[in-house]
Amino acid sequence: MKLKSLFTVADAATLLNITYAGNGEQTIEGINEIHCVEKGDLTFVDHPKYYDKALQSAATIILINKEVEVPAGKSILISPVPFDDYNKLTRKFMPFLASSKMISDSAVIGSDTFIFPSAFVGNNVTIGSGCTIHPGVCLYDNSVIGNNVTIHANTVIGADAFYFKRKPEGYDKMHSCGRVVLGNNVEIGAMCTIDKGVSADTIIGDGTKMDDHVHIGHDTFVGNNCLFAAFAAVAGVTKIEDNVIIWGQVGIQKDIVIGKGTEILAQSGVGKSTAPGSKVFGSPAVDAREKMKELVMIKRLPDLFKNQS
Amino acid sequence: MKLKSLFTVADAATLLNITYAGNGEQTIEGINEIHCVEKGDLTFVDHPKYYDKALQSAATIILINKEVEVPAGKSILISPVPFDDYNKLTRKFMPFLASSKMISDSAVIGSDTFIFPSAFVGNNVTIGSGCTIHPGVCLYDNSVIGNNVTIHANTVIGADAFYFKRKPEGYDKMHSCGRVVLGNNVEIGAMCTIDKGVSADTIIGDGTKMDDHVHIGHDTFVGNNCLFAAFAAVAGVTKIEDNVIIWGQVGIQKDIVIGKGTEILAQSGVGKSTAPGSKVFGSPAVDAREKMKELVMIKRLPDLFKNQS
Amino acid sequence: MKLKSLFTVADAATLLNITYAGNGEQTIEGINEIHCVEKGDLTFVDHPKYYDKALQSAATIILINKEVEVPAGKSILISPVPFDDYNKLTRKFMPFLASSKMISDSAVIGSDTFIFPSAFVGNNVTIGSGCTIHPGVCLYDNSVIGNNVTIHANTVIGADAFYFKRKPEGYDKMHSCGRVVLGNNVEIGAMCTIDKGVSADTIIGDGTKMDDHVHIGHDTFVGNNCLFAAFAAVAGVTKIEDNVIIWGQVGIQKDIVIGKGTEILAQSGVGKSTAPGSKVFGSPAVDAREKMKELVMIKRLPDLFKNQS
Repeated sequence: MKLKSLFTVADAATLLNITYAGNGEQTIEGINEIHCVEKGDLTFVDHPKYYDKALQSAATIILINKEVEVPAGKSILISPVPFDDYNKLTRKFMPFLASSKMISDSAVIGSDTFIFPSAFVGNNVTIGSGCTIHPGVCLYDNSVIGNNVTIHANTVIGADAFYFKRKPEGYDKMHSCGRVVLGNNVEIGAMCTIDKGVSADTIIGDGTKMDDHVHIGHDTFVGNNCLFAAFAAVAGVTKIEDNVIIWGQVGIQKDIVIGKGTEILAQSGVGKSTAPGSKVFGSPAVDAREKMKELVMIKRLPDLFKNQS
Repeated sequence: MKLKSLFTVADAATLLNITYAGNGEQTIEGINEIHCVEKGDLTFVDHPKYYDKALQSAATIILINKEVEVPAGKSILISPVPFDDYNKLTRKFMPFLASSKMISDSAVIGSDTFIFPSAFVGNNVTIGSGCTIHPGVCLYDNSVIGNNVTIHANTVIGADAFYFKRKPEGYDKMHSCGRVVLGNNVEIGAMCTIDKGVSADTIIGDGTKMDDHVHIGHDTFVGNNCLFAAFAAVAGVTKIEDNVIIWGQVGIQKDIVIGKGTEILAQSGVGKSTAPGSKVFGSPAVDAREKMKELVMIKRLPDLFKNQS
Repeated sequence: MKLKSLFTVADAATLLNITYAGNGEQTIEGINEIHCVEKGDLTFVDHPKYYDKALQSAATIILINKEVEVPAGKSILISPVPFDDYNKLTRKFMPFLASSKMISDSAVIGSDTFIFPSAFVGNNVTIGSGCTIHPGVCLYDNSVIGNNVTIHANTVIGADAFYFKRKPEGYDKMHSCGRVVLGNNVEIGAMCTIDKGVSADTIIGDGTKMDDHVHIGHDTFVGNNCLFAAFAAVAGVTKIEDNVIIWGQVGIQKDIVIGKGTEILAQSGVGKSTAPGSKVFGSPAVDAREKMKELVMIKRLPDLFKNQS
């Protein structure tokens, strides 16, 4: 997320009661988790294995649990608990807000948009024109819905990321401060969930259509004109390029890229990135023709064992 | 869907600003997609590959994008865009209706039926007697619910079919004008979706019971006394005969027939019709005993490779 | 369930208009299905195959369809229809209650707990302090929610067990009289379902976290600090011990034990109990390394067949 008010490295050190090295007057322009970090952003790292990745990332300010050499033009904030202090910052700039109204006063709703009763529209939600929001839909705070979007009943847009850190005393939650952004001409079926980004946005491109019970994890990017059949599930931080077709009950691993125009056959489990134009099948998914050959081979196994004996 | 008012071939030509051949005074009794077409109906076709199927179907009026010889006793309407014109007709006779009330004034609700607060009952919905409709349930317009039916919380009955046509500029939606019809003594778990038919009805037979998170696609026919475990998913236009048992996370392809008394083991993916009384397993699903043998064979592969070398 | 008022074997015989053998003044302390039965409880049995199991179980009173020798210190109630009479008893002591309010007057809600509008809280529900209950959540009657629990939008807690008995005239439902009990620091994603126990409780331990679309069947016990990814499904009466990690779209069979610290890889189907610390994969699931070896073997099949010919 980008910060709307001026907040410097020294301000953060004061707030968190920690020290810094580098330029205290450096402005923190945004706060982002390592996967989505941009120039001007603060990010955090708490494991030596990832120090280099964080220090050499696009981030300008690094919240870290060791005094290290400060990369040129950057600053570091030294905290014994970077995860906790990162959560403190995101909670400060994007606090959880309650809402006692079904449609928040701060929501902005376009013309010719119909919202059924029992739909919930959170704080600072933006809905374009020509949309239909069916009963029981829940739009969490800060969701952005384009024009001519239809969302069927009981779908939930913007629930928290499923992102927990194991600590000795149990799991601790990463506070989600991103949003969900739906493009124009999107149609979402009933009973879908599209989770907000942990720190950036979960994005659904123009013209993409989803059947019922589809799940899109946090910080996922979906391109234009994709199709998702029922029960398709995408874990977090994955990129689905344009014109991808995903059939029913498919599962897609986090942090991979599904190439443009890929077709994923039903019930497949995709653990690796796919090349543009591929057609994959199986769990784990491989090239669909290769999988079909495998299935034929397996059917011939009884003959093979007969020959053996 | 059947039309309730008199509407002729000539009326349709005028409305759509297109020409016709055959009998202009012929009455359009219903409008149906090719899978569900009956005598007296209008259907559409826009691909030469399917011309013959449409012209020789039960349909009496065919909306088509070429001037062809008119079959005896039938009429044709010639349109450059049959899909779009078909949508215009279904939208005219079954328009989307908004509703600002949780329970529409046009809903008909039987005696001894309890509807929890936060359940939504759309226009022209009929609910029988002795039913329990739990919180958050959404019944879209025109749904028909039998007697002694229980629908658990947040289930959605009658959302639109997932039916889109690819055009150069993106996906265009087939307007759903069918309904969902549930028989008597049906129980539907929480968080299920049963989609309305594109042009006909999605039907659930008497005594059928569903666990939570079950999905039934558009124009599917489910017989009597079937069981669906959690996350079972049926794509559109499939026929499930009586007494079928479908275990958890099963996926069933569109446009097939699951024979009477079939049992489908958990996580199977059924791509072909099944014979009555069959027991199938696997993805793709085959006879369950055959699948078990396959699994045993695969376990013996290490020995086979050892013998080879 | 435990009974709160005094109710004896003779009282039950009178209510059900049946006879008994043993001690008519014996108190029925609770009513439980055979899987969850404790000393002092009444249970039922109607198939000779299970007579011994029921008579030798912890149950003190057995509702049975045959005059058998009464075990020492126990009583029997002789009914032609034990299933129906058992249902009559559970319905008497835990009747279905309607509720016209979004938050029942009998609900007890802790301090610093925020309940969004459109969430439904049934009769006798208890919610601890520091909880967030998002829009559209449905808490069925008698649910117990610990402290610092977050439940995301449209999740349903406490819907009926999917438990039907086949009779000649169709399926008959076992009346659910158990509850759902969530521990402290639990987080449940959007669109989850946790079903109530048929006669005992469905329990979720402290610190357990679930992603969206997770399903937990009736009478399931989940330990502390478990993780459930999206679309994980657990059938009824299964025990998940502490620190178990279940990835996306996993299915788990009823009535098994998932050992402490087990990790179940995505899309697996688990049909057997797992040892503590195991890592399993596949459908049916086996040791993950074994499964990986199998997959490698299968890839080598073309070579094998080439050598054969």
